[in-house]
Amino acid sequence: MKLATIQWKGHTAIVQVDTEQRVVRRLSDTLDIHDMNQLIERLATTPSPLVFSDDALAFDQVQFLAPIPRPRRNIMCVGKNYFEHAHEFTRSGFDSSAASAKDAIPSAPIVFTKMPETVVASGTPMGYPNGASTQLDYEAELGVIIGKPGLAISKADAMSHVFGYVILNDLTARDLQAKHKQWFLGKSFETSCPMGPWIATADEADGADLDVKCWVNGELRQNANTKDLIFDIPTLIETLSAGAMLLPGDIIATGTPAGVGIGFTPPRFLQRGDVVDIEISGLGRLSNPVR
Amino acid sequence: MKLATIQWKGHTAIVQVDTEQRVVRRLSDTLDIHDMNQLIERLATTPSPLVFSDDALAFDQVQFLAPIPRPRRNIMCVGKNYFEHAHEFTRSGFDSSAASAKDAIPSAPIVFTKMPETVVASGTPMGYPNGASTQLDYEAELGVIIGKPGLAISKADAMSHVFGYVILNDLTARDLQAKHKQWFLGKSFETSCPMGPWIATADEADGADLDVKCWVNGELRQNANTKDLIFDIPTLIETLSAGAMLLPGDIIATGTPAGVGIGFTPPRFLQRGDVVDIEISGLGRLSNPVR
Repeated sequence: MKLATIQWKGHTAIVQVDTEQRVVRRLSDTLDIHDMNQLIERLATTPSPLVFSDDALAFDQVQFLAPIPRPRRNIMCVGKNYFEHAHEFTRSGFDSSAASAKDAIPSAPIVFTKMPETVVASGTPMGYPNGASTQLDYEAELGVIIGKPGLAISKADAMSHVFGYVILNDLTARDLQAKHKQWFLGKSFETSCPMGPWIATADEADGADLDVKCWVNGELRQNANTKDLIFDIPTLIETLSAGAMLLPGDIIATGTPAGVGIGFTPPRFLQRGDVVDIEISGLGRLSNPVR
Repeated sequence: MKLATIQWKGHTAIVQVDTEQRVVRRLSDTLDIHDMNQLIERLATTPSPLVFSDDALAFDQVQFLAPIPRPRRNIMCVGKNYFEHAHEFTRSGFDSSAASAKDAIPSAPIVFTKMPETVVASGTPMGYPNGASTQLDYEAELGVIIGKPGLAISKADAMSHVFGYVILNDLTARDLQAKHKQWFLGKSFETSCPMGPWIATADEADGADLDVKCWVNGELRQNANTKDLIFDIPTLIETLSAGAMLLPGDIIATGTPAGVGIGFTPPRFLQRGDVVDIEISGLGRLSNPVR
C-alpha cells in the first residue's frame, strides 16, 4: 500500500495512492485520523485494515504534502553508508569524521540528526540558508519509517518494526558540515529535508534491494542499490535502538550513494534554478528545484 | 521568576518557585496552561504578567518533574565550549572531532543533539544504556531556553530571544561517542538528559556570569563560570539560527567545563550507586543517582 498526505479543499487528509490510475482515495472518516504520525501510532498499537473512500481524486486535483509533514522528533541520518560514497566524501576533504583516507570506511554507523521542521514536500523549492552557506549539495537516500516501537531491538526482529519506506534528499551545506565538525548545523537548515511523494508500506517494498537514482537537471548523478549499504537496515535499527526506544513515525535516513556534488573535481555544488530528481524503486519521484 | 513543572495530586501543573520559603504556587487556572512548552510559546506571542495562586505548597508536598518534561524537538548541545575541557577531552583520546592536540580548540561551535525523550527530572535514577556502554560520564551544563522565535538572529538581538536558564547533565557514553564518530548515539540514550529543578527566567540570571559546579559522591569535580565559554550565548544563538528558525522552548546546552571523568588518568567513569550533583548560581541543584 502507498500512503500519502495531501491538501485538498483546504483540508489535510491521508490517502491511499493508486499509481496506475494516478488517483488517490481518502482514509475513511470513521478513524478520525488526519495525521500520518497518528495513523502510524494507531496501527502500531491496534493493527487493523484501513478503509478508504470510493471517491477517487486525480493526482492533479490535490496537493501532495510530505507524507510526514512534521516528524515528532529529529530525523536520524546515517553518514557514509555506501562504500564508494565513503571514499569520495573522505577524498573530498569535507569529512571531519576521518583524519585520513584509511578512515574512510566507518567501523560503526555514523548518526546525526536533522530538525523536524526541515521537511518539505516534493515540488517545494529548497534553498541556501540565507548567507550561511555557498556550498549546497544533494544526497539521495532511502528513508525507513518505524512502526512498532522498541528498545534494544535485535537484528532478527528489526524488520517487524518497519512501517514503510520513503524517498529523502539529505540536503547538505558542505561548508557548514566541515566547519562545525559535528554535522547537525550543515544538515539542519530550512528546506534541507525534501521527502516524498508517498510512503510504501513494508509489505510492498524490499528495503534491502531498491534502486536509488538521482538526477540534477536531468543528468544522472547517483545510481546505486540499497543492497550496497555498509550497515543494512536491521543493523541500523539494532544500533539506534540499543540505548533509546525507537518510536512510531521515527525516520531513519539510511545514507547516500556515490555521485554527490563534492565527489567531482572541482565540486559541483547546486545552483539556483537547478532541479534535483530522486527515484527509488516503487517509491515514486521526489523532485525539488533550488530557489 | 523561577518556574517549575510539578506533579501534585495526580495532576501536572506549572508553578512559581519560592526558594526562600521553599514553597511553590500554581499558575492561575484562567490561562488554562499546564505545559511549559505551551506557556513559553504563549508568552512569546502575547507577553503578559503571570498570575499565581495564593495557596502555597511546600516543596516536600509536590514532585518536581523536569521543567520541560518533553521538549518539542531534539535538544541542541554544544561540544568543547570551555578551553580547559576542550584540551582534556582531546587529550583523552575519545574526541573524534580532533585528529591531534592542535585541533583541541574549535574554530566554530560544534553542535549535536539529544532526543527529547532523554529528559528526566532531578532525583530520577539515570543509567547505563543496557549492554551498549560501559563508560558513562557526567557533563554539567547551563541550558539556555529560547522564548521568542527567530531566524538569522544577530548577536546584538540574541539575548532578547532567551526565555530562561536551566541546569542540564549532558550524560555521555564515551565508548559510543568515540565509536560512532558523530556524537548523537553516545549522547542520546534513555535518561541521558537530567534537567532541573527549575527554570530561572532571563530577567533574574546573567547567563554570561554563572558559576557551574558538579560533584560526584560529594567530591567537587567541575568548578567553572560561564564567562569562560569559548562561544558565548549570543554567538551560539546567532550560529544556530543562521539557517533554521529557533522556536519557543528550544533548549541549547552550552557545553561542559573541565573535570569530567575522562579528564582523569585513568578515566573515572560513573559507577552504579554514584550520585551526581550539579549547581549553577540561582538555578538550584540537579541531583541524580546512577542506577
